[in-house]
Amino acid sequence: MKEITTGNFPNSKKIYIKGNIHNIKVAMREISLSDTKDREGNLISNPAITVYDTSGPYTDTNYEVDIKRGLPKLRKEWINSRKDVRTLNQLSSEYGNKRLEDKSLDKIRFTNYNHTPLKAKDGMIVSQYYYAKQGIITPEMEYVAIRENQRIDEIKENYKKHKAHEEYSKIPVTHINAEFVRDQIAEGKAILPSNINHPESEPMIIGENFLVKVNANIGNSPTTSSINEEVEKAVWAFRWGADTIMDLSTGQNIHETREWVIRNSPVPVGTVPLYQALEKVKGDVSQLSWEIYRDTLIEQCEQGVDYFTIHAGLIWKHIPMTIHRTTGIVSRGGSIMAKWILQHQKENFLYTHFEDICDILSKYDVAISLGDGLRPGSQADANDKSQFGELEVLGELTKIARKKYVQVIIEGPGHVPMHMVKENMEKQREHCDNAPFYTLGPLVTDIAPGYDHISSAIGGAMIAAYGTAMLCYVTQKEHLGLPDKNDVKEGVITFKLAAHAADIAKGFPGAQYRDYVMSKARFEFRWKDQFALALDSEKAMKFHDETLPDEGYKSTHFCSMCGEHFCSMRASMEVRELAEKTKEKSAEFENSGSNIYL
Amino acid sequence: MKEITTGNFPNSKKIYIKGNIHNIKVAMREISLSDTKDREGNLISNPAITVYDTSGPYTDTNYEVDIKRGLPKLRKEWINSRKDVRTLNQLSSEYGNKRLEDKSLDKIRFTNYNHTPLKAKDGMIVSQYYYAKQGIITPEMEYVAIRENQRIDEIKENYKKHKAHEEYSKIPVTHINAEFVRDQIAEGKAILPSNINHPESEPMIIGENFLVKVNANIGNSPTTSSINEEVEKAVWAFRWGADTIMDLSTGQNIHETREWVIRNSPVPVGTVPLYQALEKVKGDVSQLSWEIYRDTLIEQCEQGVDYFTIHAGLIWKHIPMTIHRTTGIVSRGGSIMAKWILQHQKENFLYTHFEDICDILSKYDVAISLGDGLRPGSQADANDKSQFGELEVLGELTKIARKKYVQVIIEGPGHVPMHMVKENMEKQREHCDNAPFYTLGPLVTDIAPGYDHISSAIGGAMIAAYGTAMLCYVTQKEHLGLPDKNDVKEGVITFKLAAHAADIAKGFPGAQYRDYVMSKARFEFRWKDQFALALDSEKAMKFHDETLPDEGYKSTHFCSMCGEHFCSMRASMEVRELAEKTKEKSAEFENSGSNIYL
Repeated sequence: MKEITTGNFPNSKKIYIKGNIHNIKVAMREISLSDTKDREGNLISNPAITVYDTSGPYTDTNYEVDIKRGLPKLRKEWINSRKDVRTLNQLSSEYGNKRLEDKSLDKIRFTNYNHTPLKAKDGMIVSQYYYAKQGIITPEMEYVAIRENQRIDEIKENYKKHKAHEEYSKIPVTHINAEFVRDQIAEGKAILPSNINHPESEPMIIGENFLVKVNANIGNSPTTSSINEEVEKAVWAFRWGADTIMDLSTGQNIHETREWVIRNSPVPVGTVPLYQALEKVKGDVSQLSWEIYRDTLIEQCEQGVDYFTIHAGLIWKHIPMTIHRTTGIVSRGGSIMAKWILQHQKENFLYTHFEDICDILSKYDVAISLGDGLRPGSQADANDKSQFGELEVLGELTKIARKKYVQVIIEGPGHVPMHMVKENMEKQREHCDNAPFYTLGPLVTDIAPGYDHISSAIGGAMIAAYGTAMLCYVTQKEHLGLPDKNDVKEGVITFKLAAHAADIAKGFPGAQYRDYVMSKARFEFRWKDQFALALDSEKAMKFHDETLPDEGYKSTHFCSMCGEHFCSMRASMEVRELAEKTKEKSAEFENSGSNIYL
Repeated sequence: MKEITTGNFPNSKKIYIKGNIHNIKVAMREISLSDTKDREGNLISNPAITVYDTSGPYTDTNYEVDIKRGLPKLRKEWINSRKDVRTLNQLSSEYGNKRLEDKSLDKIRFTNYNHTPLKAKDGMIVSQYYYAKQGIITPEMEYVAIRENQRIDEIKENYKKHKAHEEYSKIPVTHINAEFVRDQIAEGKAILPSNINHPESEPMIIGENFLVKVNANIGNSPTTSSINEEVEKAVWAFRWGADTIMDLSTGQNIHETREWVIRNSPVPVGTVPLYQALEKVKGDVSQLSWEIYRDTLIEQCEQGVDYFTIHAGLIWKHIPMTIHRTTGIVSRGGSIMAKWILQHQKENFLYTHFEDICDILSKYDVAISLGDGLRPGSQADANDKSQFGELEVLGELTKIARKKYVQVIIEGPGHVPMHMVKENMEKQREHCDNAPFYTLGPLVTDIAPGYDHISSAIGGAMIAAYGTAMLCYVTQKEHLGLPDKNDVKEGVITFKLAAHAADIAKGFPGAQYRDYVMSKARFEFRWKDQFALALDSEKAMKFHDETLPDEGYKSTHFCSMCGEHFCSMRASMEVRELAEKTKEKSAEFENSGSNIYL
């Protein structure tokens, strides 16, 4: 039985910031830093830095992890206090009940749960979008406002203390507040995925005007794996920075596995309900039906899935456009629905029943991620008429979802050459009325299997800088095989890197602060601080220690890359001392200029 | 004693394309492909694809490698036939002669060389830039024209055969020809590094209008490593795609090691002569002098180094601008020269002696890579006045170099946030009269030690798409330690990926062809073809085989990533069959439209 990974990162502790409007405590990670030693040997303290934290209670050393109990229900009171939900006496889905009644499943069932889910009272709507439209600032909204700010007021003070680059002092103290969050959600520019049946989730927001988010796909393979292993996969992904996880499991017992994952997940969980619906008909696409799909939606709504990928935009007329593509239809959901359409000679049932879908989802506040069934699977197919044709339909479906108060985001490509990346963002904005964009990459070349996390991080960083709100990670095993635990970690970190680079480019207040603090630690040879501040502390330390393992090398003024005599930072410090000593002469040169060729 | 890596890549052979103007044979790699099996089971052949090949004779199975003999002197006759060089009776540098006379070095000396280097005859200039200005198309120029084209005429035919996307048929058959190459060199927009004492090099070109190039830094560490190991480091780097290598060795016996590397290198070799000059004064910056540096230049010119990084643009007046930087001066050469300036209270001797430097280099056709001693070492320092101040001086030095007929490129950053990347390219163009730009990354965030190859590949791909001609690779050990062999490979492949993505974005004819061929193989489940076409065949195959090792899985219509039932490409093929069968009904829908919401 595999263990769940717990414990915080080096020099880090979990802190909780209180709300002003609501009685909430927002979880964050505080990294403490060692002192700077100045030229005279004086110690100057460096303030701790607070960073966004997706890892949940697992990194709180005061919290005792017990996956059989599940995570604390952080949002339970918030939800109940709104008085718009009722507790059902039993599950509403046929399949859910069937599984519950099957005694043979007792040994794999999550038991600390009474299976009496919440649902909106008749005539009521419980989505954050609906509340925002009514002018209500929910505790969830205040939570994300505090979370996104990363203590910007402290950052501003610290910049001043460091007498850093004057640019930084221009940062506004309050960029993101609860009212701004409400407004963005009300405008449909951001979503706050928060199924009322997933009270364990720590509120997070997906939108262009917030930090760029990263999704990691997990999922059990058809071969049986233990429940612990499945929960650990999820914990592992958000430990390294996944803001949401998508459970793309196929095979046996996915209902029960999903229950375990949701009860133990502090981040929103997404799924593609079509996959499970297809499992229910044993992989026979022709047997798929609206009824089976509908029951699957309800089943998952009542388990607490926070968002569904729904391939409702791929309609019959698009299919002929894909026939001469280099790589046809590469979306799993897209290819399933295209096959269904042609087999039945009927329009996509996800499209024809889209209003029905919204009616179900609005009762639980499950968000829709409109799937791009026709995303290009190769550079050659990028930005073609089938891709953009589907995008137009996604735009229309966005309007319907909003009418029904369902939160909605739009999925995007795929494989797109660099010079065509921007057009994707522009067209998405044009057609989808500023709904958040959620892309898979895009990969900027097709010839790098084994390195597709990098190919897609390049496109991902670019499209995020243009405005994409969330990036779906791609692992180095993409196109080749099933990712293992290490691939998941590398994939998540690679996409955190891309997302963070975009955050800096978008000028988010404070986004560059962690880079500043890291660079200051680097220049001052505070090696342990560098490791603590790194996106992957473990790897940074491991690489450093491969050549200089001794503890003494954690404070030396060089590393093995350039060696002692060729360390530029070391020499640069000496330059500063010399410059100080020769100030007058230098000033003379600075003013007079010494260019002989200019 | 470590072996030199030889042998070609899967399904690949070395081919040689003959010139039209000169009697030359241009080396390339041809990848043969397996047949496509259509729905009726008919076999349709796929034409072989020719790709750019940096690996030199080492991948020619007909060539017997012997590093003691060195590579064939491909350019020897071309150089001699120009009748503008003379063979010296002995080495011109004091240090070179000292080493030659030292019998204790005999055991580590490359012996198949008579140490009578070539030099331009008095009053003559031997640079490709000079020839280009005279309207002469050298064999080197025709070589790169053929090399860069990658058999574009065949590509165009093949696109037609495949009935691919009509876009492709618009590709002009001859994009790059020898006259275009000459013109670009004459304009200073491209350089063709080609020291007359490195006749073993296969001509390559660096310029915005050519394929983006990648440089890999190699170099022995102060601990002794065998000669074989040093040569293997170089062979390893260009095997995986390095277009040039820079030998940044420090420590003992670098003169002898360099000789071995150059005699066995089919790609241009660059160095930073300042490093060796500093070794000669035992690391004591204050002892550096123009005389020692000058002798080092001559020593290396006569060994065959093709380009020198020279930090001549960092002048006294810039130093005070760096004092309040977050990370000071992070260029090794830059920090050394800044220290020298302040210690001596004199202007940078590389700046004051720049014309002398050019006079020396023009006698051997050694190109100058103007070092950016003040490149930013952190996001916080990007695009500041010291960086751009130095860039202006580099622009002035470019003019001097050209006056002296020395080929010149400009080095660039460094650490730059994504939104500030473009300004670097624009300012470089503005100040440096279109001399090729050669950047190190830039890294788009500072917080990813252990992943800095990715951080820099993002910035690198972007700046290359904007026009940068060559990218210096960064390994995952950057900021942490000395890269090992695997880090070098990962770094080179990552930067080939970034460079190739930029080639596609720049619309180079044929750049996307390899992606097209790869994607076609992917869609047709020709797994072995996918491996052969990958930038890293070994890794692609290894990842695939981790879960499906049996030979039978090399042709199955799925992989372990999604499994048999959820393979979108497999389903997409079925969709094509169905679409064929239900053509009429689909056409009806296509014309009438079936949107119910639109």
